[in-house]
Amino acid sequence: MSALAGQQRIAEPITPEAIRAAVAAQRGMVERLFATLAAGSQGHPGIMRDTYGAGENFGHRVMVEEASAAGLVVKTDAAANTYATWRGADADAPAILMGSHLDSVPHGGNFDGAAGVVAGLVTIAALRQLGVQPRRDVTVMGVRAEESVWFQVSYIGSRSALGTLPEGALEAKRIDTGRSLADHIAESGGDPEALRRGGHALDPKRIRAFLEVHIEQAPSLFEAGFPIAICTGIPGNFRYPNARIVGRYDHVGTPRRFRRDAAMAGMALAHALDEIWVAHEAEGTQIAVTFGRFHTDAEMHGMTTVPGAFHFSLDVRAYDEAVLAGIEAQMHQAISRIETERNVTFELGQRASAAVGPVDAGIRAALAQGAETLGIRAMPLGSPASHDSAAFAAAGVPVAMLFVRNEHGSHNPKEAMEIDDFMAAATVLTQWVAENAG
Amino acid sequence: MSALAGQQRIAEPITPEAIRAAVAAQRGMVERLFATLAAGSQGHPGIMRDTYGAGENFGHRVMVEEASAAGLVVKTDAAANTYATWRGADADAPAILMGSHLDSVPHGGNFDGAAGVVAGLVTIAALRQLGVQPRRDVTVMGVRAEESVWFQVSYIGSRSALGTLPEGALEAKRIDTGRSLADHIAESGGDPEALRRGGHALDPKRIRAFLEVHIEQAPSLFEAGFPIAICTGIPGNFRYPNARIVGRYDHVGTPRRFRRDAAMAGMALAHALDEIWVAHEAEGTQIAVTFGRFHTDAEMHGMTTVPGAFHFSLDVRAYDEAVLAGIEAQMHQAISRIETERNVTFELGQRASAAVGPVDAGIRAALAQGAETLGIRAMPLGSPASHDSAAFAAAGVPVAMLFVRNEHGSHNPKEAMEIDDFMAAATVLTQWVAENAG
Repeated sequence: MSALAGQQRIAEPITPEAIRAAVAAQRGMVERLFATLAAGSQGHPGIMRDTYGAGENFGHRVMVEEASAAGLVVKTDAAANTYATWRGADADAPAILMGSHLDSVPHGGNFDGAAGVVAGLVTIAALRQLGVQPRRDVTVMGVRAEESVWFQVSYIGSRSALGTLPEGALEAKRIDTGRSLADHIAESGGDPEALRRGGHALDPKRIRAFLEVHIEQAPSLFEAGFPIAICTGIPGNFRYPNARIVGRYDHVGTPRRFRRDAAMAGMALAHALDEIWVAHEAEGTQIAVTFGRFHTDAEMHGMTTVPGAFHFSLDVRAYDEAVLAGIEAQMHQAISRIETERNVTFELGQRASAAVGPVDAGIRAALAQGAETLGIRAMPLGSPASHDSAAFAAAGVPVAMLFVRNEHGSHNPKEAMEIDDFMAAATVLTQWVAENAG
Repeated sequence: MSALAGQQRIAEPITPEAIRAAVAAQRGMVERLFATLAAGSQGHPGIMRDTYGAGENFGHRVMVEEASAAGLVVKTDAAANTYATWRGADADAPAILMGSHLDSVPHGGNFDGAAGVVAGLVTIAALRQLGVQPRRDVTVMGVRAEESVWFQVSYIGSRSALGTLPEGALEAKRIDTGRSLADHIAESGGDPEALRRGGHALDPKRIRAFLEVHIEQAPSLFEAGFPIAICTGIPGNFRYPNARIVGRYDHVGTPRRFRRDAAMAGMALAHALDEIWVAHEAEGTQIAVTFGRFHTDAEMHGMTTVPGAFHFSLDVRAYDEAVLAGIEAQMHQAISRIETERNVTFELGQRASAAVGPVDAGIRAALAQGAETLGIRAMPLGSPASHDSAAFAAAGVPVAMLFVRNEHGSHNPKEAMEIDDFMAAATVLTQWVAENAG
């Protein structure tokens, strides 16, 4: 122990054993919080914490109640994000933010997003138990609206907080209710008019770092046999949330030369992008191509009718802006060819995109060092998914992420997480905050 | 004119001019019947004469009223098919049947099916106007349930009448109501219990011929510039009405090697069959491949979720049973490969099929000769579609078909028919019946 312990407690090194024990002591809270969240947002199957709806609102209430009971300072902003702050001694010192989103995809899992909020609460609880007095604010942020499936807009909560929400986003319609983002925000206790006026809660310069614990999206850790990973980068993407192909409905016996088969045109585009994916993988370039919605029109389709319309969503992601641009150009070439070959018209509709999100090299190295010190096995992993961290990185905030092993992948009801693995991530996070809150 | 005119009126040759004039005189009835049918079965868009539902029942009421008013003998059978008979002098002479179905696909056109019934009524009216006295019965049949989209069973009405409805068909469920064919038949005035006991209205040996006028399904006549065609053959098919692919729902960022993307598996099967189609066309073999339903699950799909389930219907048709068998074998090979490559499972579900339907060479030649005599331009055309005629052919009845030009293809709201073209087909039909009713 340092000879200065009595004078400058905050800077005092805390042993790895003490960190591990203090985090382990929060296990009951962890289990209780995840159980409470799951019980209140059942999606039959899976979890339904709909963005700016009953499910997400419930998640924020759980966070507020827990943080208030712990004596943290709880605030919300114009986008109805929730902040739970452990006040530091120096109000001018840039704050440490930890957190993630509290919404889910339809029929998703309990841990995607919520794990980052629970990890933040665990970290504060553990550090308080250790008697740490932070110099800077340490804040857990419950972020709104990360799951872009609902409004087809990325990072709504984090970009609202950072003042980087794109023009027009407040007019986006939720895919199920058809009502605007502004209406949904107002209904959830936010203030869309303040957002329109450019008001935002966070100044990137006053944030020391944003740290996000998140369940892994693909079973890479499960495959490799590691409990946690330290993120090496967050992919950017381009998206067409509501594309369609217009052909012509025809009788099932129509000869090929007369057909304007919209479903076969959709097949041809998916085939082209699948081949592009294979080619990139062969060169060692990581990308992903997803047609999440890929369907004929339920109102019109039938076994004996050639489909005259086809609908799809497309998400293409990569770690390199040039790779993304190249794929999009190839996609447009493929569409031109398919339009000619199959006598159909593509209407791509709205385009959305997210920039590639770099992680902070210093924090990444410190987390790796911390894991080693703590005796926790951690591997490096490029995030396959987008995360709020990317919005913070784009705003100039140093960001880092920790991934927790998940056997079944996320965005599905079978998403899985061992509490032991989660505690490992929370321990590495706590270690870093202990060293950097001073 | 024949010297025997007074003694044997029925065998007396009638001049082409007289036939044309007598059919042309029915134009008002034709326009009135099509207008009545359309007005009573609007589908918004298109026409909705749902099989054993309100739309088809309406069609049969229109036929019954017209035939009754004309003094024809009207009957129905256990499958609720409608028969309107102009009695011949010899009750033992095999009858001539004309007709087609009165149902439509959802949001279909007004002429697909109904044209065959109207043509039969026109023929009888024209021949009566000409003073013909038939030796054999001349019957118009309003066939039930030809559009297999509703119950996923082919030729329900015609096969019920012929006693060839397959085992279990009465238990088939209508795709929208979920209720059984037996229930629907009973509700439409039929007697499913009589069908179960094997009762059927028609004896193939007592049918001289079945003649079906039908709108063309693809714009082959439009393309070639002919008003009508004489059918050279009716394709057989194999079908999988309700197939699905089981994969796994995953996060949109999931790397390729972990994915079990059911939509991409659907793409791969459609791609394989599309290539098989191209290869057959290159060899001059006419087939058609249709994925009428081709879709992710609306309850579960979303832009940021890899599809874990995919649904499709498949119809493959050809004029040669060996070609069909070969394609189906290639399809199974493709499925095995896709299952391995993409870690998914195909569940093809129920299989249905229809035999290739040959047309009667003698009647076909007589129709061609008749058209030439009448000065009506007619081309030979392989039917791209299945028709009730195929069920009659399979039962041993001599069959023939006449197609009417249709610019926009059938099974869609834009289906089109010029009354002039329809009258041309009715004229050729009338000529043949005039020559063969004796």
